[in-house]
Amino acid sequence: MTPAQTALLADLAPMLGPKGIVTDPADIAPWTIDWRQRFRGTAPALLAPASTAEVAAVVAAAARHRVALVPQGGNSSMVGGATPPGDGSALILSLRRMNRMRSVDAAAGLAVAEAGVILSDLHDAALAEGRRFPLTLGAKGNATVGGLVSTNAGGTQVLRFGSMRGLVAGVEAVLADGSVHDGLAALKKDNRGYDLTQLLVGAEGTLGIVTAATLRLVPLPATRTTAWAATGDPQAALALLRRFQAATEALESFEILPAESLAAVLAHVPGARAPVAGAHRWHLLIEQTDPRGAALTEAVLADALADGLIQDATIAASEAQAADFWRIRESISDSERALGPASQHDISVPVEGMPRFMIEAAAACEARFPGTHASGFGHLGDGNIHFHVRAAPGTDPARWYAEDVPVVTRFVDDLVIAAGGSIAAEHGIGQMKLHELERLSSPARLAALRGVKAGLDPLGILNPGKLVTLAPGQPDQ
Amino acid sequence: MTPAQTALLADLAPMLGPKGIVTDPADIAPWTIDWRQRFRGTAPALLAPASTAEVAAVVAAAARHRVALVPQGGNSSMVGGATPPGDGSALILSLRRMNRMRSVDAAAGLAVAEAGVILSDLHDAALAEGRRFPLTLGAKGNATVGGLVSTNAGGTQVLRFGSMRGLVAGVEAVLADGSVHDGLAALKKDNRGYDLTQLLVGAEGTLGIVTAATLRLVPLPATRTTAWAATGDPQAALALLRRFQAATEALESFEILPAESLAAVLAHVPGARAPVAGAHRWHLLIEQTDPRGAALTEAVLADALADGLIQDATIAASEAQAADFWRIRESISDSERALGPASQHDISVPVEGMPRFMIEAAAACEARFPGTHASGFGHLGDGNIHFHVRAAPGTDPARWYAEDVPVVTRFVDDLVIAAGGSIAAEHGIGQMKLHELERLSSPARLAALRGVKAGLDPLGILNPGKLVTLAPGQPDQ
Repeated sequence: MTPAQTALLADLAPMLGPKGIVTDPADIAPWTIDWRQRFRGTAPALLAPASTAEVAAVVAAAARHRVALVPQGGNSSMVGGATPPGDGSALILSLRRMNRMRSVDAAAGLAVAEAGVILSDLHDAALAEGRRFPLTLGAKGNATVGGLVSTNAGGTQVLRFGSMRGLVAGVEAVLADGSVHDGLAALKKDNRGYDLTQLLVGAEGTLGIVTAATLRLVPLPATRTTAWAATGDPQAALALLRRFQAATEALESFEILPAESLAAVLAHVPGARAPVAGAHRWHLLIEQTDPRGAALTEAVLADALADGLIQDATIAASEAQAADFWRIRESISDSERALGPASQHDISVPVEGMPRFMIEAAAACEARFPGTHASGFGHLGDGNIHFHVRAAPGTDPARWYAEDVPVVTRFVDDLVIAAGGSIAAEHGIGQMKLHELERLSSPARLAALRGVKAGLDPLGILNPGKLVTLAPGQPDQ
Repeated sequence: MTPAQTALLADLAPMLGPKGIVTDPADIAPWTIDWRQRFRGTAPALLAPASTAEVAAVVAAAARHRVALVPQGGNSSMVGGATPPGDGSALILSLRRMNRMRSVDAAAGLAVAEAGVILSDLHDAALAEGRRFPLTLGAKGNATVGGLVSTNAGGTQVLRFGSMRGLVAGVEAVLADGSVHDGLAALKKDNRGYDLTQLLVGAEGTLGIVTAATLRLVPLPATRTTAWAATGDPQAALALLRRFQAATEALESFEILPAESLAAVLAHVPGARAPVAGAHRWHLLIEQTDPRGAALTEAVLADALADGLIQDATIAASEAQAADFWRIRESISDSERALGPASQHDISVPVEGMPRFMIEAAAACEARFPGTHASGFGHLGDGNIHFHVRAAPGTDPARWYAEDVPVVTRFVDDLVIAAGGSIAAEHGIGQMKLHELERLSSPARLAALRGVKAGLDPLGILNPGKLVTLAPGQPDQ
């Protein structure tokens, strides 16, 4: 522990008490390794304030002592965004004790949740008032509101209601000097200068510590129709997406998976069954909540069958069957992991360009890296897939991750940029993509990112080494 | 003209030519006075580049010579946001020559428009492809895309599709060093660091010059139902709003006006007729585009009549009658102007609090300023009204504007803040509200605004004196 860190803890001890300051290495250890166990850091202490006032005092003291803080919620970052640096220079600032739902207003369609509220608890709180919070993702039992806001999280229901950016009506945050920005008032129109709420959404804790958020709730749908369709061609899938969007504004999910992803799930998950018979190159999972119900889905799918866009389709006959369809989709990552190490890429391109990208990028990767297998699955409706390049059979995993993955990553990222896309679609930059962001961003974008960071965190104490580094000579270098 | 300005024009003359540099005072004069003729400035030259590359060259040269620029589109700001300072220290940067629709993609629901495209031309371009751009406002024949983006403009159709912030999928902008940020790619998911697009929306040209934007288009509605209802109480109006929102997701407008606003229109606009008979304290203009059509509106209004929420209602029987309803709404500002000078306030509070605010703020103003008349009208569904305090009969207009309006403004703004609202709902800060923003913002918010400004425009050359001033000692003081 550095002298500055020791002095900081001494300052904070009377306020935070033993529950708010953790220094036993065994208790800290689980929070120094990321979700996928790719990034390992060190932190001499974990601070766990229980209120906004305590967070403000922590940040003010950290600024005074020039000690960096790494904010952390459920520690479910996919890009090492919540893992402390390896040199022990930063303390972990856990928001998990701030886990109160401050309010749920069904009539206004708004809930105020503290940063440490877990996503599935937010779902439950909304449901208890007859509303729903329409964003969900695999880590819903761990991910917290603060992390979801700070990473502009996405998921499988983004198509209709958007990612977190569209669902956050306001935030309360502690800024780098320890002052509290109270932006919780859910004003539908507010043009008082730069939108600090939108700036903090997706800032990965590098500009301020989100302590609470006002979130939009939507009505519960009266009906929900889940369908599975098979097609030979992603371009036909896109055409089907457009038909659904023309037929209803209530299309909520439009997911695509290749035959090999389905096969991996069928081989890995006991009891899993293919929703449609026969061999098909691509599969689609389609869900809508239009009041016209299943008849709407039936009509669109019947036309698509007649026109040859799809070769087969089925509508889930029960909630249990719909859940079975979703279990296939949500088991892909685990199932593919059993097939060997892979280089994984959360990327987006314009929706219109995704079918071509899926075909061409896979072919380019397999040609460039002989023996590998490349394919993507995910949110076709959002132009966002998870593109995986699986190592050639027999590859040593340690060598693959250390030597091959960086090369594969640069190759894939170059393809994404050439297609006008983003190398960070829904998982963010964290520490994993920081160098690729710097390599591939225009000087204008990089200068703007650094300008914002320098303007709001001039001492560089908030989540250093994530998202963007300041120019050489600046504090966090 | 300062030596630096002379040198700048000399640098730019070969590129911009005579069409791109205007120095005749008679040609510049109309652009140095704001829309409402409240702010008068001076500019020794108006620069009118015709391409993004030319804008970039202009800004780079301005940075080199330390000459400030005031970006201007249709010059329809309500807060003096596009008027140059009075000392001639800045040049006007007009974007009006950049008026090309770069693309309209009906299938993807996206259009790319240059900054100088006029809103009504954007409407027409979308319509020609069978789509609509769902934001409109009174100045649609003048307001340009660059100004709409830079002010996060609102209007009467915000309820369903949001203000500009929700309709901008990407921007191209020239940053303060002359570099070009190309953010036009409409990626539905893109978490590559801070969202520069959202930061530029509503920044009033103080962080960068928006040169083009990618805008969302929505399908044309198959049906549209416009209704007028009368009620005695804004709280009942809010209850009716919630019933409509529970009945349909396609509620597009929910406007409120007091009896005196309707009376002013009837007295001022030849041929205007009251949609419903009898005397009613409050009137509502309600529009929805649900596929279920007029039957939905009829059912909700019938229940509301039966329950006593409203006293009378009528549904427009034709497009002409619907247009008549809208003409009443859109004639309020002009009609009230005929009644004498007023202090006008574009403000918002949380939707749930608006009924109470409308009653209590009006009473408080009339008690505090004897002889005045205070009332608000506008976007109840957005929690945003235009709150006008009309001078006591016989008040000298010059004295009213010079002496009374600042006092009334501070009084009204204090009421707004006490109600948890915003003193700048849809018109922005500009130069008109800059001092009130500084008076009423928390130190945290002000420091953050200044941090962003200093980080992105360290020389203070972009629209100085608007939105936020840097701390004392900084360049634009």
